[in-house]
Amino acid sequence: MSLHQDPIVALATPCGVGSIAVIRLSGKNIVSIVNQVFYGKDLTKQASHTIHFGTIQRGDMIIDEVLVSIFLAPTSFTKEESVEISCHGSPFIVEKLLQLFIDQGVRMAEPGEFTKRAFLNGRFDLAQAEAVADLIQAESDIAHQAALKQMRGHFSAELQTLRNQLVHFAAMLALELDFSEEDVSFLDRDALSQLATQLIVPLEELIESFRLGNVLKNGLSIAIVGAPNAGKSTLLNHLLQEERAIVSPIAGTTRDTIEGQLHLGGVLCRFIDTAGLRDQVSDEIEAIGIERTKQQLSKSWMVLYVVDVVRTSWIEAEAMLEDVRTHGGHLIKIGNKIDQATPMMIESFKKKDYLCISAQNGEDIAWIKNKLLAYIQDQPMPASGTIVANMRHYERLQSSKQTLEEVLIGITQNLSNELLVVDVQKALYALGEITGEITTEELLGDIFSKFCIGK
Amino acid sequence: MSLHQDPIVALATPCGVGSIAVIRLSGKNIVSIVNQVFYGKDLTKQASHTIHFGTIQRGDMIIDEVLVSIFLAPTSFTKEESVEISCHGSPFIVEKLLQLFIDQGVRMAEPGEFTKRAFLNGRFDLAQAEAVADLIQAESDIAHQAALKQMRGHFSAELQTLRNQLVHFAAMLALELDFSEEDVSFLDRDALSQLATQLIVPLEELIESFRLGNVLKNGLSIAIVGAPNAGKSTLLNHLLQEERAIVSPIAGTTRDTIEGQLHLGGVLCRFIDTAGLRDQVSDEIEAIGIERTKQQLSKSWMVLYVVDVVRTSWIEAEAMLEDVRTHGGHLIKIGNKIDQATPMMIESFKKKDYLCISAQNGEDIAWIKNKLLAYIQDQPMPASGTIVANMRHYERLQSSKQTLEEVLIGITQNLSNELLVVDVQKALYALGEITGEITTEELLGDIFSKFCIGK
Repeated sequence: MSLHQDPIVALATPCGVGSIAVIRLSGKNIVSIVNQVFYGKDLTKQASHTIHFGTIQRGDMIIDEVLVSIFLAPTSFTKEESVEISCHGSPFIVEKLLQLFIDQGVRMAEPGEFTKRAFLNGRFDLAQAEAVADLIQAESDIAHQAALKQMRGHFSAELQTLRNQLVHFAAMLALELDFSEEDVSFLDRDALSQLATQLIVPLEELIESFRLGNVLKNGLSIAIVGAPNAGKSTLLNHLLQEERAIVSPIAGTTRDTIEGQLHLGGVLCRFIDTAGLRDQVSDEIEAIGIERTKQQLSKSWMVLYVVDVVRTSWIEAEAMLEDVRTHGGHLIKIGNKIDQATPMMIESFKKKDYLCISAQNGEDIAWIKNKLLAYIQDQPMPASGTIVANMRHYERLQSSKQTLEEVLIGITQNLSNELLVVDVQKALYALGEITGEITTEELLGDIFSKFCIGK
Repeated sequence: MSLHQDPIVALATPCGVGSIAVIRLSGKNIVSIVNQVFYGKDLTKQASHTIHFGTIQRGDMIIDEVLVSIFLAPTSFTKEESVEISCHGSPFIVEKLLQLFIDQGVRMAEPGEFTKRAFLNGRFDLAQAEAVADLIQAESDIAHQAALKQMRGHFSAELQTLRNQLVHFAAMLALELDFSEEDVSFLDRDALSQLATQLIVPLEELIESFRLGNVLKNGLSIAIVGAPNAGKSTLLNHLLQEERAIVSPIAGTTRDTIEGQLHLGGVLCRFIDTAGLRDQVSDEIEAIGIERTKQQLSKSWMVLYVVDVVRTSWIEAEAMLEDVRTHGGHLIKIGNKIDQATPMMIESFKKKDYLCISAQNGEDIAWIKNKLLAYIQDQPMPASGTIVANMRHYERLQSSKQTLEEVLIGITQNLSNELLVVDVQKALYALGEITGEITTEELLGDIFSKFCIGK
């Protein structure tokens, strides 16, 4: 048990008017503190995980009728004695209750303080604690599942395996060290090299998963490119409309110029408008516009390239495409307006792998969605199924990998084991910082300040 | 038990991202329905008012780690079997869980449906159920206490006493009726009159309390009146600033042109700007402005009349006041800018009962607040302490009172007891509609549709 046991209180449910609100309290003697203002029964005599109806009063004045849930240490979320009060969902009542507990000497919790206590009291490690915040913020199936897995310790278990292997590796180096004066070098350098290389493989896989993890957090950016009047907006509206039922109701922070977003295959897809792609650069200002478009394209995961098959020839279309190709991601070529086109026009584009559709009447638009879905499902998933979505974890994994690479070089350069062990320990240290076995007050402060109050 | 037992589900906490969210379910076999998707233990074997940790899954896919609270009939809020699920406060997870239960055949609850069931299952009467909604909306101490008292049955108890007296009265009339053929009139008409009058007194008191009740719901409107540059805004800012700590954080619907609001003596005070009060009407448009101001004044509970003591003589000030006097409420006269005034100027206003202050440097502003407070505390409180804040109740009380007044007239006009009994029963009926002893589906629908979903 840590010393962080002074009683704390916070509203745990979102602010605003609702049916009920939940106030969470945790810390030493918290049941007895709540009991002083609770009328109905003696809360201090109740078992853990039980619910009690009564009133909370300031003197004779009833503040509310409430349900009080009791969680005794160490079976609560924080592992401390905890209480949850379910009151009527009125901001006025919540304020009165918080004020009452503050007057009783309970302190307002800092952001993330409940989760921080859970971590400090050993309920879970740091990576799991951080997953709690990611879980609350998750807006798509895959992000949700990734955060849930991490919270339930999948990532931590993998890291533990890695750490065990590193400890074993360091032990072998040290063992050789002990006997070095006697010149007993029983590990040949090649075997050491091989071991270090094997340790780097899972690290690389985790690091690689960050690319995907980042996508899960922020969504896949899909740029829609095309000359004016190629039918970009009509196409987008059609794509969004079909999926309106599952369009995310949560307004994200504005990133770039998002025209709309929807979930496909459990992944958030953000459609981005790219202005100013013309075949002829007429002046300097337009050149700047195109430069900007290119930058945006280079950041996109995919480009939907839309062409008007009636007013453009496939030769012009392919020529314009050169600008788009500078981007390294996926590309879907779309020939629009087949409702107005001759069969020959359509055929010429089909030969060049254009998906030919009519955004106007919706003809064959499903093809685009299917192709998008295929690309999404083709995303490389790490073999372990673990996805690193946290920048801090990514950096520590990178640092660990780089140190092991230095060990590899050291081995080939016949560096002394003393020096190699120091590097292996540095790699271990970096991994320990992810799970919080190695930590500082500053790091903890930084991590938990990003949580919401009441968590 | 009513037939309204099909299982329902709703989010009970406010929408949005938070630490936790609570999903509420109620209805037949709801524990066993939740148990089908809950992993951790067998919920159907658990006692009422207990909390259980586990996961909720759709097939193999974990949706969240949750705490499930069990409430067995009839000890739940609805008196039906109920479950509350406390999950992570993510709109994404909440949607997944709601969808899961809907797929299991649980229906989304209508607004107020949980409270409606509590009423239909006899947990409380209609007046108490309606107080739940008022309690959630309460924004001031007095409104909060009034709603809480009503929810806890104080108002219902008073109505019950009244109804008992009316039943007694009707019985006496009927008794005389039974014997009327034998011409045994043992109740003299004066005694009947007196009884009816006595019944009207508490009704009148309750009706009178509605004026206050309405104030509690909407706040006291305080108009600030004065010529331009009299110092209205400076005064208001000073009043608000001092009280900023307890200014309501809840944005109300805009009523009139509210310049600011604060709580004084537990009551919400809304300051309203009234434009266009000048001593000389220069044109037609300005006349319309003044007409509008007068209308606003007539709706105000109080007027703060602000005069610049340096640039106005007390004679001019009193002349201008004539326009203000058309309003029937309270009036506080304020002489502003004493920091720039001569003692003689100040003295001349003080003689006419102006509170002389300096809004600029805050001098003597406390006087205004104290006087306001005195008026607020002087508000007539009903002897019983019960405050009617609901328009529907007010109308039914009015109707009941009017019918009894007709009975009174009937008695003096020597109307037959048969006819009198019909009227007394009408009065009883009106009171019964308040508590819901007499009710219709339409009325219930109307009342509960104003609740939020999940309540």
